Amino acid sequence: MTIAAADLHSTELPTISVEGRVARLREILGQQSLDALVVSASSNIRWLSGFTGSSGLLVVTCDDMVLITDGRYTDQAAEQLAAVGAPARLEITATAQCEIVQAITASASTVGLEADHITWSTHQRYANEWFADRQLTPTVGLIEKLRRRKDDAEIARIQRAASIADASLNAVRSRLNDSPTESEFAGELDAMMRKLGASGNSFETIVASGPNGAKPHARPGDRRLQPGDLVVLDFGCVVDGYCSDMTRTVAIGDIDHTQVRMLKVVTAANAAGLAAVRAGVAGSEVDAAARVVLADAGWSEAFSHGTGHGVGLDIHEAPRLGATSADILEYGDVVTVEPGVYLPAHGGVRIEDLVVVTKDGCRVLSHTTKSPTP
Amino acid sequence: MTIAAADLHSTELPTISVEGRVARLREILGQQSLDALVVSASSNIRWLSGFTGSSGLLVVTCDDMVLITDGRYTDQAAEQLAAVGAPARLEITATAQCEIVQAITASASTVGLEADHITWSTHQRYANEWFADRQLTPTVGLIEKLRRRKDDAEIARIQRAASIADASLNAVRSRLNDSPTESEFAGELDAMMRKLGASGNSFETIVASGPNGAKPHARPGDRRLQPGDLVVLDFGCVVDGYCSDMTRTVAIGDIDHTQVRMLKVVTAANAAGLAAVRAGVAGSEVDAAARVVLADAGWSEAFSHGTGHGVGLDIHEAPRLGATSADILEYGDVVTVEPGVYLPAHGGVRIEDLVVVTKDGCRVLSHTTKSPTP
Repeated sequence: MTIAAADLHSTELPTISVEGRVARLREILGQQSLDALVVSASSNIRWLSGFTGSSGLLVVTCDDMVLITDGRYTDQAAEQLAAVGAPARLEITATAQCEIVQAITASASTVGLEADHITWSTHQRYANEWFADRQLTPTVGLIEKLRRRKDDAEIARIQRAASIADASLNAVRSRLNDSPTESEFAGELDAMMRKLGASGNSFETIVASGPNGAKPHARPGDRRLQPGDLVVLDFGCVVDGYCSDMTRTVAIGDIDHTQVRMLKVVTAANAAGLAAVRAGVAGSEVDAAARVVLADAGWSEAFSHGTGHGVGLDIHEAPRLGATSADILEYGDVVTVEPGVYLPAHGGVRIEDLVVVTKDGCRVLSHTTKSPTP
Repeated sequence: MTIAAADLHSTELPTISVEGRVARLREILGQQSLDALVVSASSNIRWLSGFTGSSGLLVVTCDDMVLITDGRYTDQAAEQLAAVGAPARLEITATAQCEIVQAITASASTVGLEADHITWSTHQRYANEWFADRQLTPTVGLIEKLRRRKDDAEIARIQRAASIADASLNAVRSRLNDSPTESEFAGELDAMMRKLGASGNSFETIVASGPNGAKPHARPGDRRLQPGDLVVLDFGCVVDGYCSDMTRTVAIGDIDHTQVRMLKVVTAANAAGLAAVRAGVAGSEVDAAARVVLADAGWSEAFSHGTGHGVGLDIHEAPRLGATSADILEYGDVVTVEPGVYLPAHGGVRIEDLVVVTKDGCRVLSHTTKSPTP
């Protein structure tokens, strides 16, 4: 641990600026012959405008950007738009969303809707009431693609979240020897992340011990950590909207030869995956680099998920690093590298780092030791 | 506090049984001339089958119920279906969802899809690939309507979650005098709920102090609690999937006359709302009963949200208790009663109880004192 807990609070984070973001979106809308886009996903709204309320729509046309929300958010929305320099107008309404959207998009003949982020019900309402005379085009991943390249202010937040996760495990690590239940240890880790400045978890913390470790999606339960256990710790936190994600596996007491080998092989697979990461490389190549190490050990069947995923405002975002992924890594992507081996009779091992993709390789944001000693 | 923390762990909860649930759903499908329903919402899948995995579909026809999920959940799904006595078959697949659903629904000419719980993208895939020759009907709230009447095993879980929330506030209440930040106090409350047996929060805990209290949806921040503050504490936790929800408002140090009056009036509005609850009464009547107390005090404009909502597997579910709600309360509904007054210059007061609707009134599940003393 090189970062003292005090530093996690005291250092100012650089200000987020959304300058240039909507211009890049408009380029894509132009390429796709869309005159307007109704942005529904809260992470996409936040990335374009800074607004974090739970209820709102952002409408983008070639010369206008309008955030529509309700009276609960009047002050907050105005402050947040100003804070990030969003070139957006604000419309507050409880009941006139339809009329406002119609006015903004009056001259648009093709309107895009985020097909992965509106329900069928909402699409029906938009198609029948809001845009009865307009061509509605389903869009998928337009803004998500732009969100891949993180700027310095975004990376600073992700790094802070990763550092808080590091410091939190460091602070409560010795408790692993006190035979806590999975749920108790998860609670301690979560409380420490909050104490060190996180606004919350980026996903439900996984503490999966013994046989539970062999289930990649186990939820923490009442099982007590005990000698002979491998314990998978997969957790992360949120700082100013940005997520972190890390996995370490610790061994309680004496473990068997297979478990020792699992730790060694997965550590090597994680290293091989990290070594393969750089801008221009396919996500599937990173996956293959990690997977071949596991296959050489005879464990290709024991690794049942992809090697990684993008992380940012969402805990799972583009790109994907898996055997069937068509994504090519880009400069500024923030991704996980997380191979694992799951054997019901021995438990599970997963080791995951969070990294920023660079031209020549990657910069690792997770600094917790990979030693399995609690 | 009548419930000792130890009791929260030691008493067994009654077993959940799904007996009769799918039969009631089939009655409704028959009334609506639907031959099959594809259930997508995870809470609805859980209520019908006990399955809690993050990925799965449940298909119900007049003589079949099939849970379709992937290999990560093989053991878990089989165990969970058996534990609640679900009369469901299990199909495990990574890639053959479409073929399996087509086989199950081969003789169905009308198929319902949960329009509020599938995306437009998913609807397009179902319409074009899965059910190209079939009539697809959007359904809204079918299972949610059935979920309203909670049985004894469900109420036991909600009561446990409410009792853990009570005990947690009781345990950390004295810390309100130590000038914590909103975020720090929220963290202590959350950690205590986990320690006392909750699997997590039912929503992000609200600790809204001073001017922040005037925003009903404030998120806990770095502001320190200080003399003269009203502090709105709105929180709940989850026990075996079921949520609780409670709000109390405390006063730090000396508060002004308006703040004293706010506490008195909202306490009276909460009592008036509770007194109006019983099976057969409209949700809008309960809202009106609370609202008239605030209006009599001159604060009708200062109460900007509805009086309550249903709580169960979801933190917000049917029925709604608001001015425009058409819902009639039914025996077995679990609902909140949560009037508030929000005045930017003085802060906010909200007082919320969770209750079970009975034939003659209601049974209150929240037992924390309404005294504003920390």
